Amino acid sequence: MASRLAALARHLRPSPTHAQPHLHELNPAYFLPRAAAIEPAAVAIVHRDRSGANIERDYFTEADRVRRLAAYFKRCYKDGTKIGILAPNTPMFFELMFGIAGSGHIQAAFNYRLSAAEIRTVVELSAVDVVFVDIDYLSVLMNAVGEGFPDLEIVVDLDTDHEEDLRDFRATGHKNQTYGELMASTVGDMTPFDQLHFEDQPEDKVFALSFTSGTTGKPKAVEYTHRGMYLAAISSIVESELNRGDKGCRYLWTLPMFHAAGWSYPFAVTAVRGSHVCLRKMDYTVVWEYLTSPQRPITHYNAAPTVNIQICEHANAKRLPERVLVTVAASPPSPSLFKRMVALNLIPVHVYGLTETYGPITRCYVLSEWSAHDEDQQFKKMSRQGHGFLTAQKARVVKPSLADRGELVDVERNGKEVGEILLQGNTCMKGYHNDEKATQKVFAGGWLHTGDLAVWHPDGAVEIMDRNKDIIISGGENISSVGVENVMSAHPDVVEVAVIGIPDAVYGERPKALIILRASGKAKNPESLRAELIEFARGRLGGFEVPREIEFVDELPKTSTGKVKKHELRKAERMHFERSQNAFGRHRGQS
Amino acid sequence: MASRLAALARHLRPSPTHAQPHLHELNPAYFLPRAAAIEPAAVAIVHRDRSGANIERDYFTEADRVRRLAAYFKRCYKDGTKIGILAPNTPMFFELMFGIAGSGHIQAAFNYRLSAAEIRTVVELSAVDVVFVDIDYLSVLMNAVGEGFPDLEIVVDLDTDHEEDLRDFRATGHKNQTYGELMASTVGDMTPFDQLHFEDQPEDKVFALSFTSGTTGKPKAVEYTHRGMYLAAISSIVESELNRGDKGCRYLWTLPMFHAAGWSYPFAVTAVRGSHVCLRKMDYTVVWEYLTSPQRPITHYNAAPTVNIQICEHANAKRLPERVLVTVAASPPSPSLFKRMVALNLIPVHVYGLTETYGPITRCYVLSEWSAHDEDQQFKKMSRQGHGFLTAQKARVVKPSLADRGELVDVERNGKEVGEILLQGNTCMKGYHNDEKATQKVFAGGWLHTGDLAVWHPDGAVEIMDRNKDIIISGGENISSVGVENVMSAHPDVVEVAVIGIPDAVYGERPKALIILRASGKAKNPESLRAELIEFARGRLGGFEVPREIEFVDELPKTSTGKVKKHELRKAERMHFERSQNAFGRHRGQS
Repeated sequence: MASRLAALARHLRPSPTHAQPHLHELNPAYFLPRAAAIEPAAVAIVHRDRSGANIERDYFTEADRVRRLAAYFKRCYKDGTKIGILAPNTPMFFELMFGIAGSGHIQAAFNYRLSAAEIRTVVELSAVDVVFVDIDYLSVLMNAVGEGFPDLEIVVDLDTDHEEDLRDFRATGHKNQTYGELMASTVGDMTPFDQLHFEDQPEDKVFALSFTSGTTGKPKAVEYTHRGMYLAAISSIVESELNRGDKGCRYLWTLPMFHAAGWSYPFAVTAVRGSHVCLRKMDYTVVWEYLTSPQRPITHYNAAPTVNIQICEHANAKRLPERVLVTVAASPPSPSLFKRMVALNLIPVHVYGLTETYGPITRCYVLSEWSAHDEDQQFKKMSRQGHGFLTAQKARVVKPSLADRGELVDVERNGKEVGEILLQGNTCMKGYHNDEKATQKVFAGGWLHTGDLAVWHPDGAVEIMDRNKDIIISGGENISSVGVENVMSAHPDVVEVAVIGIPDAVYGERPKALIILRASGKAKNPESLRAELIEFARGRLGGFEVPREIEFVDELPKTSTGKVKKHELRKAERMHFERSQNAFGRHRGQS
Repeated sequence: MASRLAALARHLRPSPTHAQPHLHELNPAYFLPRAAAIEPAAVAIVHRDRSGANIERDYFTEADRVRRLAAYFKRCYKDGTKIGILAPNTPMFFELMFGIAGSGHIQAAFNYRLSAAEIRTVVELSAVDVVFVDIDYLSVLMNAVGEGFPDLEIVVDLDTDHEEDLRDFRATGHKNQTYGELMASTVGDMTPFDQLHFEDQPEDKVFALSFTSGTTGKPKAVEYTHRGMYLAAISSIVESELNRGDKGCRYLWTLPMFHAAGWSYPFAVTAVRGSHVCLRKMDYTVVWEYLTSPQRPITHYNAAPTVNIQICEHANAKRLPERVLVTVAASPPSPSLFKRMVALNLIPVHVYGLTETYGPITRCYVLSEWSAHDEDQQFKKMSRQGHGFLTAQKARVVKPSLADRGELVDVERNGKEVGEILLQGNTCMKGYHNDEKATQKVFAGGWLHTGDLAVWHPDGAVEIMDRNKDIIISGGENISSVGVENVMSAHPDVVEVAVIGIPDAVYGERPKALIILRASGKAKNPESLRAELIEFARGRLGGFEVPREIEFVDELPKTSTGKVKKHELRKAERMHFERSQNAFGRHRGQS
């Protein structure tokens, strides 16, 4: 250990003289060498690799690996090179986050659930020179790039010490090596951290591209800066209480790292010397193993509502002895989900954000004065999106019709008038990469237009009603699909529900609910359960909001980030409607 | 409440369009309107006023008062006006912190323990146009400014609703009003927060002058920027765990607010909607009342070691049922103090910093691996100054002889070689106000020279040995007065100890200990206790480090920030030595 510490000391020699000694550039990559300098023996990475072997590495080791990786990037690539990543939550992904940010290059992390055609799109969009790919996604990458990208360099991560047969791939002519070969080539490189200038990148420089999920059209590449990520990561520490001095932070990577750069958590967890427990894929049995580990249980994780539903419904779910803080975002969660989570001691930190805002940017703050309300009221309040984060500015809600004309006029703060959420400030993206037109449009009037429809409550909290495109307009009345879902999901037989607008010859649209049932519900007669659910909704919603059509389904189509693909559901319904209209038309024509 | 909320909503209208919507200026004043927007009913201020009446104000009220105050400042003073503050920890002081920072002016907070002559110095140095003064300090202020500052405006805070006879003061001809009159004149002002542009001050602009304690020479005025204070405050939240979601933060103002702008805590506590419990003066009985309050006990406070000694030694001291986090700095604390604190459940967060660094800038991180050591070893490690803060850069230690020549060469990281601590980055001051020469000198080579002598441990932690001027040089050997104090204070009869170098005809200097005894020690025979203490030190220090001279004292002279005034002690010893030398000389001359 002594010689390792001496080596670390060499790497941490102070930076060269600053022009202004009272200023340094905000850079989240610096959190890693800092963590290693404070507590080199703290566990940085816990991982079950592709062969099932358990890996555990301390902060000294991870900082040293990243130092060598960053030195390699500095030496081998010209400044600002774009480096693609196509991988699940592995140590390589973690190391690339820091190695790329620290060396002045730009990461572009792709969604590993995309098809070959979609991957081709994001490879083109980001114009990467090299892709770091996990071997499980090598074939989809090769299908994606086909013959079209002969100069693309490919680095394959085997995520195991075992040998793999890469002959076919090696024969494609792409410049290539494995991640293991690359890292082995850096052994012996003693370039100190200071010469890598982790803290000397201009803070407003772009270091990452993150892709919108592209539920409606092509994905866009969102630009992240060092300053933005630094301030987002600090908010994540404070808002999700990662800085618990009495027991440390052990963070489970249920959230994909590619999603909005892991909502800043690669940096936030590292800043407090927490342990990153990686997951190659979501396996809920493994999640509960980690949560209930007697020695070192998980203290924090992040997940979309749909993932939390699976965690709560799992056969091994049981109330945990200590609070686990769960940062919840990606789609509006229901009060009943929060109730189920709290019963298990999974304490929700409800946040809201977009890929365009480094993930979370608002939080629903739980207020002590709520204890005067009954429990259901409290959970209902908890499902609001709330107020701007510590390092964010406030969220506002403006009249959508005027916003289209470039006029930004706030809605009334009455919890009723629906408008669009607008955001601004340090934790908003710099822009869409190479797309000045889309950037100007989304920042019209100097504010980021989220496309999310919300009300503004008298207490200043924002509450999402719907995505712009998901709101249901029935007989001229707006119906919030989220509002209807929140009511239906409170029924004890319901696990999950999606409400969409379906074509209606009279009202234009009417709401329909697609419901996944619990075993208790499956055991009932479907027709009487349908009637029961409609009756349940009738007592809690306006008459026009009650979905009279209910379909029981086994699953719902979801995006990689856990959002229900409502446009797919609507498309299916529309095709069904058009067929029936045509049939009706023909029938009428024949009459 | 509803109409108050509506009024607040009006004050929180979004800011005007930014030139770059992905950037906003870092400004700590914004934390107040944000806190009020999130949780208007949260308790902001708890105060027992000058007449003994209890005051409690919520965040809505405080934000509203500060809004009116900032609007007044904008209207009445030209941009960048310097506003003096001479007051104990009162609501007025809290409101001025935010009102001045938010309105683009500059605060200059004076030490209320200074003499009239010293106050005159800082009034001249800061060139304030107006002073806000607590009535208890009005006479010293009037003595200080005498006839010399006829244009100085004076605002007197009565800190009570009672009438006071100010006829004599009113007759001095100074433009004047009471703080109550000023605030009353702003009632009805509905200028919204957005028109005050709390977030639109350039982040590198100076908003505060803070004065060095001037133990050795005249005080200097240190410049604080919005960016520096914002980042310092965020570190304070994270490092001192102010963000405890499960029970909130109730912060006791044991630290004077004038000291390095309260180490950023006016802003840090506000950012998490904590309660500021003010204290007009240190009364240890009152401190223990607050700590043991059955309804709402204190969760955090900050204090110098000497204040913590008083708290631990108080007759009402008892182990607290819940952890209280105590941020300790201002002079190097001893391991035995930490041991006593932990026994009472006062958990130390040991930090180090200067007026030049917004207060704390390094922290001694407590590592889980220390549990392998015995308890005394752990407390010894805990008394190190540690590593750079979350938002700071690293601290380095350089060879002092070379530093004087402008060469910055690190000492060995061996825990032995003594050098000077150097600092750099966002939480260092911008400079000394109107003193380019002193600024250049303290930032020689692009690093802030602290004047603190320290060793660098192999694990990267910095440990202070002494102030430059306090180190004892005896027969060519350096003796750390802090090191000797740490040993002596571990003796069960010792409450507090100061070790200084006294003139020695043979060795140049030799160490002398001035000791405050516990009752147990006072009951012993002084001579045999002296022998016992020397024997105690002999087993734990090098022979040349053992103080053979020990004086028992009832108190030690201290600066307002709790540092022992060693220069005063040395001066007394030197005069005594010179008298005895002269006497000896005369005696010889006569022989």
